[in-house]
Amino acid sequence: MKVLVINCGSSSLKYQLIDSQSEEVLAKGLCERIGIEGSSVTHQKAGEGKKTEAVLMKDHTDAVKVVIEKLTDPAEGVIASLKEIDAVGHRIVHGGEKFKGSVVIDDSVLEAIAECNDLAPLHNPANLIGIRSCQKVMPGVPMVAVFDTAFHQTMPGKAYLYGLPYEYYEKYKVRRYGFHGTSHDFVSKRVGELLGKDRKDLKIIVCHLGNGASVSAVDHGKSVDTSMGLTPLEGLMMGTRSGDMDPAIVGFIAEKENLTAAEVINICNKNSGVLGLSGISSDFRDLVEAAAAGNDHAQTTLEAYAYRVGKYIGAYAAAMNGVDAIVFTAGIGENNAQVRALISQYTGFLGCEIDLEKNKAAVGVEAVISTPESKVTALVVPTNEELAIARETVRLVNA
Amino acid sequence: MKVLVINCGSSSLKYQLIDSQSEEVLAKGLCERIGIEGSSVTHQKAGEGKKTEAVLMKDHTDAVKVVIEKLTDPAEGVIASLKEIDAVGHRIVHGGEKFKGSVVIDDSVLEAIAECNDLAPLHNPANLIGIRSCQKVMPGVPMVAVFDTAFHQTMPGKAYLYGLPYEYYEKYKVRRYGFHGTSHDFVSKRVGELLGKDRKDLKIIVCHLGNGASVSAVDHGKSVDTSMGLTPLEGLMMGTRSGDMDPAIVGFIAEKENLTAAEVINICNKNSGVLGLSGISSDFRDLVEAAAAGNDHAQTTLEAYAYRVGKYIGAYAAAMNGVDAIVFTAGIGENNAQVRALISQYTGFLGCEIDLEKNKAAVGVEAVISTPESKVTALVVPTNEELAIARETVRLVNA
Repeated sequence: MKVLVINCGSSSLKYQLIDSQSEEVLAKGLCERIGIEGSSVTHQKAGEGKKTEAVLMKDHTDAVKVVIEKLTDPAEGVIASLKEIDAVGHRIVHGGEKFKGSVVIDDSVLEAIAECNDLAPLHNPANLIGIRSCQKVMPGVPMVAVFDTAFHQTMPGKAYLYGLPYEYYEKYKVRRYGFHGTSHDFVSKRVGELLGKDRKDLKIIVCHLGNGASVSAVDHGKSVDTSMGLTPLEGLMMGTRSGDMDPAIVGFIAEKENLTAAEVINICNKNSGVLGLSGISSDFRDLVEAAAAGNDHAQTTLEAYAYRVGKYIGAYAAAMNGVDAIVFTAGIGENNAQVRALISQYTGFLGCEIDLEKNKAAVGVEAVISTPESKVTALVVPTNEELAIARETVRLVNA
Repeated sequence: MKVLVINCGSSSLKYQLIDSQSEEVLAKGLCERIGIEGSSVTHQKAGEGKKTEAVLMKDHTDAVKVVIEKLTDPAEGVIASLKEIDAVGHRIVHGGEKFKGSVVIDDSVLEAIAECNDLAPLHNPANLIGIRSCQKVMPGVPMVAVFDTAFHQTMPGKAYLYGLPYEYYEKYKVRRYGFHGTSHDFVSKRVGELLGKDRKDLKIIVCHLGNGASVSAVDHGKSVDTSMGLTPLEGLMMGTRSGDMDPAIVGFIAEKENLTAAEVINICNKNSGVLGLSGISSDFRDLVEAAAAGNDHAQTTLEAYAYRVGKYIGAYAAAMNGVDAIVFTAGIGENNAQVRALISQYTGFLGCEIDLEKNKAAVGVEAVISTPESKVTALVVPTNEELAIARETVRLVNA
């Protein structure tokens, strides 16, 4: 089965065409600046280089048409016609409490996703546009919605309820949802396979450390807690997001800088995190380099970042009253051995002994990085959200 | 030496007269509704009952005069004249980064405290009024300022810096300060004594669980992290405070309810926490009772409360890469065995085994509540902030 995986933003559209038998990516790409002057598509056929081309795309329907053109292009394409696309899998950011798993898309699903717009006003409307555009261009092709929040819907009340007036939960559904669910699910499943066990027998802490970052506690196969909250702002310090902080700071900064709460939150999302604290970069490679060159700000920022990951590992070991495996994934988690080494300062008390040589060698590949004697296994497992979405799509279309 | 300990709020003044040799409280009391209609003083001589009396107190100077009258009253008093008061110890909420320990009060100290008003606009100005009122009524008596924040000034940058633009730290000193420092210091010192060790050889987690609540990591005698932040809103869920939550919620609620950030923060401080979540009470005895009677809201609230304490214990074990002792103090920590039992669900992975019978018996008294085999010792240690302030006052006046 050939599955087109779509991840639609407000002015962008990422795609991958995946062969579900071989699980290979046949082609992938990105449409940018959709509806804005200077729109372009970057397309890459498996085994070949990326090609970027300026194409006028006045809306997402145009973008989907461009994707189909690229995929069926005699030179750059990988299929003869769009009839070869058996199904489309859509990444949807927020499923609220409505979606506890992936679903085949029909009108009632579209309606229910729209009802979650409120919780993700920047993302869900764009995701919906992506679905409707695909439906126009590929009528009759089965489509599946895979939610970033769904895997975390198994959290118990003690983990998802905030210490706020209960009416905010009742009226506005203010609670912890968590994100990156597809990744936490995919990676924790893979840990089970790598350890030769069913993840239903394991307590796993997944550290998804990308530009956005979150930690989850996966207890016997179920997410029981995760660090992102109502929105992706909560939890770890990230590339440009503050993560956890005294909520009173929002009021404090609003008053000092004469800003609205929404404006402060915008700063916390876009100008904060390791970028804001270091004043250097949101890219951890730059920070590691600057720290090595003696930049104190960079060094302190890296330490603060790793310290917070370490504290979440401790907190989730407490949440599950134990841990069997700690796994690092996503851009930084997979590739940045220096950051992982900093985090390993905080895991010894769990009986988790990182082998610093193995850690150094594990760059972008699956690897166990703990010593053979370590009571807790530490691993690197590259995530693959697109593949996970393709698998879900196949599972549901076949069901 | 007889030390008068003063804790001054915006319309209240708490006092204790302590004999520093015997460390006994000779008398104590509370002036309420100072400057408001219906002001009153509640006074209690050691060994006798409390007496409340309506007294007109138009300002804090009046209140200090009333305190002296009560202390020197032939019937209710415990000293012949105010000359017997050798020193006054003042509890000051916020010492910012200026005060890393207690100090003898002089004009430059008053100025420096005033410079921290910005960080604690509700508390520091009231604390200053308390000092000035005492200076008027007791000129020449040495006075000492003991800060709620000072003990936590040993935190490293990785613990006190938020993931915010660094300029907010430079311009406004936005960082984690932490509070209840006097209690965390007092209790961790006492743990050392009870274990027959110097706390400089121990890793201690102090759970100060009162109406306000905070956890601290005391590593070899120094606070290296604590759950309260720029303000006392951050960290654990409390009687009426939310504690940790996605900062974006401040913006979300502000928009939904058409409130300013400051108004939302006010709700987070006063109508949230276990009161807001349960909809029942901020008093844990009421919650335990309601939960026992089958109230689900009360049960979930207690579970959420204990779960968050458990996660902080795990996080701080990670922060110190180990823990030797976990200690419970303040109203709930000292007295509520049910809440401590709920927390103990999350400590087993540390090798901390709570003996539930010992736990049940430990109400308001010093006690070890872990089993003899437990790798981590769990204790109950009643806090005594007034005594700690008196000790600091004597130490500095004698120095």
